Amino acid sequence: MTSSSLELEGRAFAERIFDTVRQLSVDTLGVTRQGYGPKETAVIDFLRSLGKELSLEERIDAAGNVWLTLAGKDRSLPAFVAGSHADSVPQGGNFDGLAGVAAAMLCAWWMRHTNFQPERDFSVLILRCEESSFFGKAYVGSLGMMGKLTAADLELKHRTEPVTLGEAIAACGLDPKQLTMGRPVIDTSKIAAFVELHIEQGPVLTSSADVRTGIVTGIRGNIRHKCVKAIGETAHSGAVDKAYRHDALMAAACLMHTMETHWQRFLDAGEDLVFTSGVFKTAPTAAISVIPGLVTFTIDMRSLSMDTCERFHALLVSEAERIGAERGVRFEFDAMLRTQPAALNQMLSERIAHAAKLCGIPVAHLASGAGHDSAVLGNAGIPTAMIFIANQNGSHNPDEAMELADFMRGTELLWRTVENYDK
Amino acid sequence: MTSSSLELEGRAFAERIFDTVRQLSVDTLGVTRQGYGPKETAVIDFLRSLGKELSLEERIDAAGNVWLTLAGKDRSLPAFVAGSHADSVPQGGNFDGLAGVAAAMLCAWWMRHTNFQPERDFSVLILRCEESSFFGKAYVGSLGMMGKLTAADLELKHRTEPVTLGEAIAACGLDPKQLTMGRPVIDTSKIAAFVELHIEQGPVLTSSADVRTGIVTGIRGNIRHKCVKAIGETAHSGAVDKAYRHDALMAAACLMHTMETHWQRFLDAGEDLVFTSGVFKTAPTAAISVIPGLVTFTIDMRSLSMDTCERFHALLVSEAERIGAERGVRFEFDAMLRTQPAALNQMLSERIAHAAKLCGIPVAHLASGAGHDSAVLGNAGIPTAMIFIANQNGSHNPDEAMELADFMRGTELLWRTVENYDK
Repeated sequence: MTSSSLELEGRAFAERIFDTVRQLSVDTLGVTRQGYGPKETAVIDFLRSLGKELSLEERIDAAGNVWLTLAGKDRSLPAFVAGSHADSVPQGGNFDGLAGVAAAMLCAWWMRHTNFQPERDFSVLILRCEESSFFGKAYVGSLGMMGKLTAADLELKHRTEPVTLGEAIAACGLDPKQLTMGRPVIDTSKIAAFVELHIEQGPVLTSSADVRTGIVTGIRGNIRHKCVKAIGETAHSGAVDKAYRHDALMAAACLMHTMETHWQRFLDAGEDLVFTSGVFKTAPTAAISVIPGLVTFTIDMRSLSMDTCERFHALLVSEAERIGAERGVRFEFDAMLRTQPAALNQMLSERIAHAAKLCGIPVAHLASGAGHDSAVLGNAGIPTAMIFIANQNGSHNPDEAMELADFMRGTELLWRTVENYDK
Repeated sequence: MTSSSLELEGRAFAERIFDTVRQLSVDTLGVTRQGYGPKETAVIDFLRSLGKELSLEERIDAAGNVWLTLAGKDRSLPAFVAGSHADSVPQGGNFDGLAGVAAAMLCAWWMRHTNFQPERDFSVLILRCEESSFFGKAYVGSLGMMGKLTAADLELKHRTEPVTLGEAIAACGLDPKQLTMGRPVIDTSKIAAFVELHIEQGPVLTSSADVRTGIVTGIRGNIRHKCVKAIGETAHSGAVDKAYRHDALMAAACLMHTMETHWQRFLDAGEDLVFTSGVFKTAPTAAISVIPGLVTFTIDMRSLSMDTCERFHALLVSEAERIGAERGVRFEFDAMLRTQPAALNQMLSERIAHAAKLCGIPVAHLASGAGHDSAVLGNAGIPTAMIFIANQNGSHNPDEAMELADFMRGTELLWRTVENYDK
């Protein structure tokens, strides 16, 4: 953005969005805007009022997502769409979701204030209910838009209030049944590209002084176990010598440490992988003077490549077998849960990289470990890409912190991508 | 024991003890005989009736422990004492404690049935309340006998009933205050030797086909921590790459695995050591998709040598420091709790080893990881030794199982030790 006074005005427009939305959804800690709840609606209504200010065409789809469109020169061309979600987790941060909406709004604002008319329509997409915190289901607005909700999804109960997801959707004046028909409620062929700008939920970009903008290479898939058991033999901690022990804790600790070493080996070989045991504990009857006979733990491994996950999982199982056999401890794996990675559009990502070069914004290429609406749109066949911007203190917590300079830089990258799309 | 019919009779006498005591204290699972409770009293009353049958002199000390004495030729000599405790843990096994009492009773039976009069008095000592399960205090009968209970001990509450330890002692017609005066309520100078036969609470002897009797080399001391913390940083399990993690679980698992390796190194160098983390868990707020920010765990290390414990503990602290520094995880150790090892009497143990040679019983020399009344008597200056006999399935559980053949062999060793004591 070249004109300095225009740049300041644009920055003020973005700040107005962030400040107003924060005020509309402030909670005792951070912000709370439940998907298909009154505060999300209030935020969306405010954003719609901005659309009116910018003379954008407004359309609300059957899932309640809002499309604010600036008409292009050739309206028969499929549109360039940018946006993200308006909701938040309970007592979350203000920027998760909202940054992507604000960036798209700022692009429209920029077009209006520079009298730029794109070749094709440019739409701001404001999605509803991306977070799973309230109803236990993520990507509700985007899945509903694709007709991919199920009857069971609509029956999901709110975590604290006596209302189902279906009832919450209906309370917004929408017909939830339409969202379960297995076909999109929008015409996906009319979307040429979808770009979602989002705060990074990890520390990569914020750890760098220079490269604070990223192009997402893909959304990691995962393999999970909710409850793996290491079953050994309880015995007196003083009376049983090492050679006679079947210590479930030492076996499980050995397995973790071994897999951590393999993990580094995978990384050294250039593979994308994260590995976590989030919950790990001895039995409720465990005591200081008893050798543990049982340890239970969760497993969560993620990669852009399902093949990497599968090979790492096979290694986990074979190491558990080997370590268990050496120690007389048996590892029992519960059902393996698989989530496929979401590929992002290579050509669209290259366009973003090209735009970054044009305007001299250094970019990192990094995977998204967290899921996003972009995965739903991408898996529905829409060319989709993501821009990450630096963010402090993680996300899904009130300490989430984004610097406006990082937001403006990421938004400039989005803008340059739109500007150059048909050049 | 030479005469075959006499041996069978002796075996029947032992079986009568085990069967009657089991019936007196049977529970839904195993047996339950709370120290200073009605069932322990009933068991002691039955054993006293056997003392009468054998015309043994009976004395009950101020702590309620029962002394059944067969007069020796020279009554001015200090006595040879053998015995163990009458109580059990809740739903425990029948042999933990009782085996040592029965072995001593059988020695007295044998003397009577072979018209053997020892040079010095032989006393069966039936101790009360060795187990800590009901009031949280172990060795109550033997500590009380040495005047080493405290006023605070007497205020300890029963784990389920509205009664204190002091009240339970008083309910047995005893004056608990006498047991807190700091001096023995018995004349310890009148005890030449105390030998406690006990089931082994580990698997060493029962793992051997031939060597199923042991002479205890000492009672392990220990260093404990009730709550060590590994403090890292919670973060999204998908969004944060390995290099950026401060995973408390991986750090704690690494520490455990590292210490297990050091432990083997200590054993290879001939040191006596066991190492256990009995309770080990991630925080209550842990979740499958969150990198653990907190792990808490207990530490229990035991050795016959306090020096070994101290060196292993120093290694634990320095490895925690190193591993923590490498990973940005902080280990916080709570107060270190020390229990000194109890030395057993070398000369008395050699007498037992000599007796074993005489009667051709192969013996192992092994440490006791669990504590015993013998430690209290030994630390009070009484020459004390222990005989272990093979036992299946550990102890403190209803599956505890001792073969009568092992009991008879151990008892023969005790008997030969008594028989040869003044030769």
